[in-house]
Amino acid sequence: MEADVLARLVDALPEGVVVTGAAEMEKYREDFARDGSAGTPAAVVRAEDAAQVQVAVRWAAEHRVPVVPRGAGTGLSGGSSAVEGGITISLERMRAVEIDQACQVAIVEPGALNVDVKIAAAEHGLWYPPDPSSYEICSIGGNLATNAGGLCCVKYGVTTDYVLGMDVVLADGTLVRLGGKQIKDVAGLPLLKLFVGSEGTLGIITRAVLRLVPVQVAGATLVSAFPTMTAASRAVVAIRQRVRASMLELMDNTAINAVEDWRSHGLDRATGALLLAQSDATGAACEAEIEMIRECCEREGAAAVFTTTDPEEAELFVAARRNAFLALEQRGSVLFEDVGVPVPLLPALVDGVAGIAERCGVEIAVVAHAGDGNTHPLIVYDAADPGSDERARKAFHEVMALAIELGGTITGEHGVGRAKKPALPDQLGDDVMALTRRIKDALDPDGILNPGAIL
Amino acid sequence: MEADVLARLVDALPEGVVVTGAAEMEKYREDFARDGSAGTPAAVVRAEDAAQVQVAVRWAAEHRVPVVPRGAGTGLSGGSSAVEGGITISLERMRAVEIDQACQVAIVEPGALNVDVKIAAAEHGLWYPPDPSSYEICSIGGNLATNAGGLCCVKYGVTTDYVLGMDVVLADGTLVRLGGKQIKDVAGLPLLKLFVGSEGTLGIITRAVLRLVPVQVAGATLVSAFPTMTAASRAVVAIRQRVRASMLELMDNTAINAVEDWRSHGLDRATGALLLAQSDATGAACEAEIEMIRECCEREGAAAVFTTTDPEEAELFVAARRNAFLALEQRGSVLFEDVGVPVPLLPALVDGVAGIAERCGVEIAVVAHAGDGNTHPLIVYDAADPGSDERARKAFHEVMALAIELGGTITGEHGVGRAKKPALPDQLGDDVMALTRRIKDALDPDGILNPGAIL
Repeated sequence: MEADVLARLVDALPEGVVVTGAAEMEKYREDFARDGSAGTPAAVVRAEDAAQVQVAVRWAAEHRVPVVPRGAGTGLSGGSSAVEGGITISLERMRAVEIDQACQVAIVEPGALNVDVKIAAAEHGLWYPPDPSSYEICSIGGNLATNAGGLCCVKYGVTTDYVLGMDVVLADGTLVRLGGKQIKDVAGLPLLKLFVGSEGTLGIITRAVLRLVPVQVAGATLVSAFPTMTAASRAVVAIRQRVRASMLELMDNTAINAVEDWRSHGLDRATGALLLAQSDATGAACEAEIEMIRECCEREGAAAVFTTTDPEEAELFVAARRNAFLALEQRGSVLFEDVGVPVPLLPALVDGVAGIAERCGVEIAVVAHAGDGNTHPLIVYDAADPGSDERARKAFHEVMALAIELGGTITGEHGVGRAKKPALPDQLGDDVMALTRRIKDALDPDGILNPGAIL
Repeated sequence: MEADVLARLVDALPEGVVVTGAAEMEKYREDFARDGSAGTPAAVVRAEDAAQVQVAVRWAAEHRVPVVPRGAGTGLSGGSSAVEGGITISLERMRAVEIDQACQVAIVEPGALNVDVKIAAAEHGLWYPPDPSSYEICSIGGNLATNAGGLCCVKYGVTTDYVLGMDVVLADGTLVRLGGKQIKDVAGLPLLKLFVGSEGTLGIITRAVLRLVPVQVAGATLVSAFPTMTAASRAVVAIRQRVRASMLELMDNTAINAVEDWRSHGLDRATGALLLAQSDATGAACEAEIEMIRECCEREGAAAVFTTTDPEEAELFVAARRNAFLALEQRGSVLFEDVGVPVPLLPALVDGVAGIAERCGVEIAVVAHAGDGNTHPLIVYDAADPGSDERARKAFHEVMALAIELGGTITGEHGVGRAKKPALPDQLGDDVMALTRRIKDALDPDGILNPGAIL
C-alpha cells in the first residue's frame, strides 16, 4: 500500500484511532488459533464508534484493501487472523452495555465481553444464556460472528437464538439496522440471521440487541466418573432421551490430568471420563431429573456418582471443565477441534478420535458439550518438532473427516475461520459452496471483508 | 404462455401431477388472505417428491415462468397468491413425517400439517413446540416459509429455533441440502436460517429436519377478565417482568363476542378483555408462577381471576382464543393484521388500534400473542360495500404505520406476502430494502420465485 493511501485513513479518523507501529501490529496478527496464516496488517483501526468503522470500511472499499474485523482475539479458528497489508478493525474499544429492563434486552457494542453482558443483566434479575467456556475473555462481537455456543446451550440454545437486532456495516460502508427490541419479527428476508455466524465475511457488527430471560439457578449438579469415554458418551445419549438437563458436559482422562497438572481442582486422575450434569428444574422436579440422570449413569457403568446442591462445590467441577483449554495449552501447542455429530453418534465419534490419536501417534484430549453432540478434541503437539507438527495436522484433518463421515459438522460453535476452511467443501458439497459464494459476492463484490475466512 | 411450452412441462412429469383445468386453477388462486392480487395460474404442479419440484423449477427457469410455492393455502398475507400465467407448485402431496427418536428430530415433507408433526412426535414422548392457531390445518412448509409463531412461542420460541436441516430447490432447479441432524453447526454461512421466513422468494423447501424436545405439560391455566384491553395489556407487561409463562394470550370484547356468536365457549360477553396464561413449571414452582400472574392481574384491575389445573377445562379457553379468526370470518370479510411491538409498548399499541377503529369507522377485533408483543387486529368489513372496503383498507395501513411508529413490526409471524408489501419499506428503510434486493437477485436473478411477494 502506498504511504499516501494509508495517510488518508489516518487523517480521516481522530488521533490514536489508527495505529501502525510494528509492535502494535504484532499484537493484532493472530487469534488464539495461531493457525499460521496470519500476515502483518498495514494498520489497525481501533474504532470508538460505528461511524469510525464506516469511515474505515469506506476507505478500504475505495482502495480495495482487505478488512479483518476483530473482537477480543480469542477465536479458535483463525477467523480474525490479520491479512498481509490489509487493515484490522478492532472493536475492543466499543464496549458499552445498556440494559432495557422493561423490554428485557441488552443493547451492546461488539467489544463488550460476554461476561460484561451477563453481569449487567444480572443486576436487573436477568440472564444472557450463551456461555462459551471463554465467556470471561471473549467478546460479544466474536460470539455473534461465530454464533457461539457454550455449556448451557443444551437447554437454552446458542447465540443466534438470542439476537433480536443488529447494526451491521456492509462492505461499502453503509450501516444497516436490522430487527429491534420486538421479540417476533418476520418483516422481509431474515437478514438478521444471515449475519450471525458469518464470521465477518459479510459485514461488521457494530451493535446488537440481545434477548434476556429471567435468571435461572442450577438446582443440582451431578458428577459421574466412568471408566471410559465410550461409556460416558452412552450415558449422555441415554440421559438426553429422558431429561432436558441444563448442562451435560464431558472431559476425558487426558483433560482431567491436564487440569490437575495446571491447578488442582480435586479431580481423580485415574478417572477415565467425567460427566457433569445440571438440572435447573425446581424442587421435586429437580430431584427427579437428577435421579433419572443417576440411573442412566449407573446403567452405563458409572464408577462413582456424586451430587450436590451447593453452587460453590458445583462451580469447582464446572470450572475444571471450562479451564481444560487453558490447562492443555500448558502442555504444548494445541490444535482446537470443534466437531459435532447427531447425539446418538457421540460414542462412535469419541471412539473414532481415540483411534486417530493412536494411528497418528498424537495426544488428543477430549472435552465436550456432550448433550449437543459437540466435542472439542484438543490435539497437543510440539510446534518446534516438524514430525510432531505434521502428525498433529494429519490428525486434525482426520478428525474433521470422521465427523463428516458420521453425518456431522467440522465446527459446532467456533467457526470455520482459516483453520478449518480446507475441510468445508467436504462437508457442504459443491452446490452449497457455490451458493455460499453467490451470497458472498452479492454482499462483498470486491471481496474485501475478511478474505480467506470461510471461503 | 404458448401451448407447446406448457405441454413440455406436462410431458416431463407423471400423469396427474400437472393440472390445468379452470376449476382446479380456481382452487389454487388464493390463500386465506384473499388479498385481491391473485391471478390465474397456467398450471398447478402437485409434486410428489423433490425431484418433481426440480423438474418444474428447471422448466420454469428455462422459460422464465413465475413459480409460486404453496402449502395448505392457509397463509394470511397472500404469500401464495397465484401469479397470472405462472405455475403454482403445490406441496400438498408431499406429507411424509418420520420421527428419529434417538436423534429427537422429525424429518418432514413440506405438505405435512403442523398437527401431523405434533402427533407423530407425541407417539415418541416428544414435542414439536411451534403452534400457530391454525396448527390443525396449516402446513409445515408454510410454517417454514413464514417462520411461523404461535401460542407457546412466548416461552419456546418460533419455527426458526427448531430447524436443524432443510432441502431447498433453488431458482435454477438445484437442490441443496443444508444442516442435518446435528444440533449445533456453524460450518459456513448460516444459509439454513436465510431460507426460514423467506416466503418462497429464494427457494422451495422440500424437506426439513425439525428439532423435538421432551413433552411439556401445562401445569395450570389462569384466565383473567379485565374491563379494558389497556388494563389487560398492562398486566401482560407486568407478568413478563416476573414470570416466564408458557402461554400469555389476550382477546378483546369484540373477539369474545364473535367466538360466542359462532359457537358458545361459555365466555362472558360483557368482559372487556380476557387474558389467558399458562405455566408449565412443575409442583410448587407452578403454583408460585400462577400466584405471581394472579397478583399482576389483580394489581392491574382484573375483574375476575379463575385458575384450573384441569387440561380439558383449560383447552376450552385456549380453543376460544385459537378460533377467533374463524369466528370473525363469520361476520364478514377480514383483513388480518399481525403487528408487533416491544412488549412494554403493548398498551400503546392496543390503544392506538382502538383509536384507528374509531377514526376510520371500522370494527377491529384484537387477539394477541401478548407475551411476545405480537397482536392480531382483525378488521371486519363488507367487501361488497365500496365504502366499507375503503375504510377497512385505510385502517389496515394505519395499523401498520402505528406499529412502525412504535418501533415495532408490520408482521410478527404471518409474513409480508403481498398484502403487507406496501408498508415494508416504511419499516425497513431504503438501505435494508436494497440489501434485500441484492440477496434476491443473487439467488433468483430472473425473479421467477414467488414474484410479487415481499418485493
